[in-house]
Amino acid sequence: MQFTAQQVATLIKGKIEGNPDAKVSRVAKIEEAGEGSLSFVANPKYEEYLYTTHASIIIVNDNLEITQPITPTIIRVPDAYSGFAYLLEKYNEMISQTGKKGIEEPSYIAKTANIGKDAYIGAFSYIGENAKIGDNVKIYPGCYIGDNVVIGNNTKLFAGVKIYDDCVLGNQVIIHSGTIVGGDGFGFAPQSDGSYRKVPQIGNVIIEDDVEVGANTTLDRATMGSTIIKKGVKLDNLIQIAHNVEIGENTVIAAQSGISGSTKVGKNVIVGGQVGMVGHIQVADGTRINAQSGLSKSVADPNTALTGSPAYDYKSSLKSQAIFRNLPELQQRLLKLEEMVEELKSLLNHQIR
Amino acid sequence: MQFTAQQVATLIKGKIEGNPDAKVSRVAKIEEAGEGSLSFVANPKYEEYLYTTHASIIIVNDNLEITQPITPTIIRVPDAYSGFAYLLEKYNEMISQTGKKGIEEPSYIAKTANIGKDAYIGAFSYIGENAKIGDNVKIYPGCYIGDNVVIGNNTKLFAGVKIYDDCVLGNQVIIHSGTIVGGDGFGFAPQSDGSYRKVPQIGNVIIEDDVEVGANTTLDRATMGSTIIKKGVKLDNLIQIAHNVEIGENTVIAAQSGISGSTKVGKNVIVGGQVGMVGHIQVADGTRINAQSGLSKSVADPNTALTGSPAYDYKSSLKSQAIFRNLPELQQRLLKLEEMVEELKSLLNHQIR
Amino acid sequence: MQFTAQQVATLIKGKIEGNPDAKVSRVAKIEEAGEGSLSFVANPKYEEYLYTTHASIIIVNDNLEITQPITPTIIRVPDAYSGFAYLLEKYNEMISQTGKKGIEEPSYIAKTANIGKDAYIGAFSYIGENAKIGDNVKIYPGCYIGDNVVIGNNTKLFAGVKIYDDCVLGNQVIIHSGTIVGGDGFGFAPQSDGSYRKVPQIGNVIIEDDVEVGANTTLDRATMGSTIIKKGVKLDNLIQIAHNVEIGENTVIAAQSGISGSTKVGKNVIVGGQVGMVGHIQVADGTRINAQSGLSKSVADPNTALTGSPAYDYKSSLKSQAIFRNLPELQQRLLKLEEMVEELKSLLNHQIR
Repeated sequence: MQFTAQQVATLIKGKIEGNPDAKVSRVAKIEEAGEGSLSFVANPKYEEYLYTTHASIIIVNDNLEITQPITPTIIRVPDAYSGFAYLLEKYNEMISQTGKKGIEEPSYIAKTANIGKDAYIGAFSYIGENAKIGDNVKIYPGCYIGDNVVIGNNTKLFAGVKIYDDCVLGNQVIIHSGTIVGGDGFGFAPQSDGSYRKVPQIGNVIIEDDVEVGANTTLDRATMGSTIIKKGVKLDNLIQIAHNVEIGENTVIAAQSGISGSTKVGKNVIVGGQVGMVGHIQVADGTRINAQSGLSKSVADPNTALTGSPAYDYKSSLKSQAIFRNLPELQQRLLKLEEMVEELKSLLNHQIR
Repeated sequence: MQFTAQQVATLIKGKIEGNPDAKVSRVAKIEEAGEGSLSFVANPKYEEYLYTTHASIIIVNDNLEITQPITPTIIRVPDAYSGFAYLLEKYNEMISQTGKKGIEEPSYIAKTANIGKDAYIGAFSYIGENAKIGDNVKIYPGCYIGDNVVIGNNTKLFAGVKIYDDCVLGNQVIIHSGTIVGGDGFGFAPQSDGSYRKVPQIGNVIIEDDVEVGANTTLDRATMGSTIIKKGVKLDNLIQIAHNVEIGENTVIAAQSGISGSTKVGKNVIVGGQVGMVGHIQVADGTRINAQSGLSKSVADPNTALTGSPAYDYKSSLKSQAIFRNLPELQQRLLKLEEMVEELKSLLNHQIR
Repeated sequence: MQFTAQQVATLIKGKIEGNPDAKVSRVAKIEEAGEGSLSFVANPKYEEYLYTTHASIIIVNDNLEITQPITPTIIRVPDAYSGFAYLLEKYNEMISQTGKKGIEEPSYIAKTANIGKDAYIGAFSYIGENAKIGDNVKIYPGCYIGDNVVIGNNTKLFAGVKIYDDCVLGNQVIIHSGTIVGGDGFGFAPQSDGSYRKVPQIGNVIIEDDVEVGANTTLDRATMGSTIIKKGVKLDNLIQIAHNVEIGENTVIAAQSGISGSTKVGKNVIVGGQVGMVGHIQVADGTRINAQSGLSKSVADPNTALTGSPAYDYKSSLKSQAIFRNLPELQQRLLKLEEMVEELKSLLNHQIR
């Protein structure tokens, strides 16, 4: 299957620079692309490859400056990454087999469960009592869907996802393998003899439309009420979401971050990897939190950037970090000053006497 | 199902303030509770809701001061959280269906395995050779129980728990979905060519009575001997317990913490989330370690509080952290001093000449 | 089964000190070893046990100095840990039942899949279309092998491993329970309305020969091309490897570390636990990164040691950490200096007037 630069440009509404008849038959990363490949450059780190790549067509941002002679045909769009994502979707649809459908055996479907049209239920998957599975849902092999779970249309659970009783998933949700939805929140009341009494966790988890959750992530059910992941949220792998947490619309959280109980994260927040947040705080819309930060209190102002553990204002924190590296020198300077001052003092005392 | 304040107070041995005939039919968090709800306040952060909530009954601590007029009926107990936990248990027993029982098909039970009375074995679960499963055990769908595993009475494994050969679980243990018990410890002997030779891990994991382990946690088997999780320990989600670790009675560890090989953690220790501990150290009873800390050496004194990475005394560490934030100002002050001292010096030199 | 010190020494080519007829029938850790046990000491932390242990035979390093009278028979080898690892292997082979073989029912094997000689396919495992499974492969119960996956000879997947479509595993690979290979990379193009468009992840994961991966680790497929884990790499539990990452030969990564997208880690690198690396960087061969560090830029020089978050030179960083603990004292000294300088200044001014 071959495409010309003209065809690609039409598809993504781009402007061509160079040969509109250049042909591609595959996609590749810019640093690995050979002749006949379509690639893209969105991150400035990769611009240098523009001048050495053998790719035949490259999608770039409108505002990219080309500073040297260049071989491939260029297609300019407002957002090269989105344009390329769109092409990959189309490419993916073409090369994919028609999606899986039907019920593979052996599987276990409770008599009271309700399965929508055109669903795929993989072998060794388990659908509990009164579960409601929407249309076009794909449940890959080895999943567990507890009693009373509700799953919307077009949702996809990869192999081995486990959903505890009573949880609710929206439409177009994607959950990757090994992720656990609805395990008990970590709630124990300390007793006078040093032991702990389990606090039953009788709430659930609600995941709204268009959410994607990575692999081996854990989302705990609420003690009472619901842990809520709002529309459009994207969670990476190995993330911990504790009981009664709420994550606002279109918030993105990178791998291995953890959010403690009852914390409310706003909309359009961006959280780096391995971040921790304490419980019972509120994080304003648009907050950006750097990787490995530890958020120990609420963030009131929207669109704040934070870093460090404990986290505070990004720019101030970077300054302190830079000085931290110079602490040995700072200590030396202090020592030298102390000596000089002692010297001055004795000189002065001497003089006075 | 409705209950009066009088009935609730009798159940938890509390003192009523207000209308003993106030009625509730459900439980809710204080910030979401409507009329007819029973709620509680244990954390001072939530006391403000006392004066605005529509809850009909609220359980509070004996020593809580009520400073404004209040609508709901109050029930005072020594520990509101424990009292509420107890009520939730009762509530949970009432609303739960009678628990699951029997062996669902298809499942795989080795002929040499031994299953106790009234056990539940979910579909797609696997019970290996010579495994011994106690009475009233619940093994949810898709679990794997290796050869020679022993599981005590009343223990509950949620969907997809994997227990490797030879591990031993006590009574009333709860393990959440996706947790792996008994994977090989991370032991490799470096070879002269830069490669590594695997050190076989021939030990096991022992989990004592009343332990609860969260979802997707990993507990590695010992190289030799046993990795031991003692009675009453509570482990959260996504925790790493390395080979030959021992965790003392009633110790509590929050999500995403990791404990390296052969470290011995004492009793009644409290470990925050995302904490790391190096291997081969000992942590005294009652130690408290703040979230995101890194423990790089043994803690000898019981009941010490620690924070930071590397972790040290909590109060001193907080002071250093506060000054860290002021490092830019500190540097400025140092610079100014240097200038002043130079000035004084030149003044003095001038004078002397 | 009993062995003499002479037999053990012959097997590992060691030199005996003490009674060559000393007999052992089991292995144990030095701190737990009783009479009739074989043990070893490689870590200096455990040398003290040499003089109190009841072990009958102890393997030690050639260069170990024995400073007190000692009861057990000693066997000296150049590398006690490797020697002991070798013995454990032999011991393990003797005590293990002959490994599992054959296809347990129920399992699901697509008609187009190809299974090698002497393979073990555990119950509830799923082998997708066109999958190719090598000889002597062991796939424990509840694994999922997607379409077109290729697995080499002698590879072992413990219970519940999930391999997405199109991934490739080499020979003698070991993957522990709950690990996910080939989940989608975390790639989303931000849209003007604040939502995100998924970037399809059409690449795969390649795991070369002799790699071992711990439990509940996640290895994401490449956006395009491959995420590559090279020969001899050892990954611990709960690690996150993002899309398009490459890990060089014989690199070792401890638990809960995370490597962001497109980062290339060199050969023979040693990464501690809970380390994070940003995306799109390169890490030179032989780099050593301390636990809980955060690597925010490329490491150009081979064999560098780093620590801290952000990570930099190990020794300098330790110095800064030491001073960090003394910041309150440093601040006091600065304050005192300021007072002294003010005093000197006023003295001097007074004098001048």
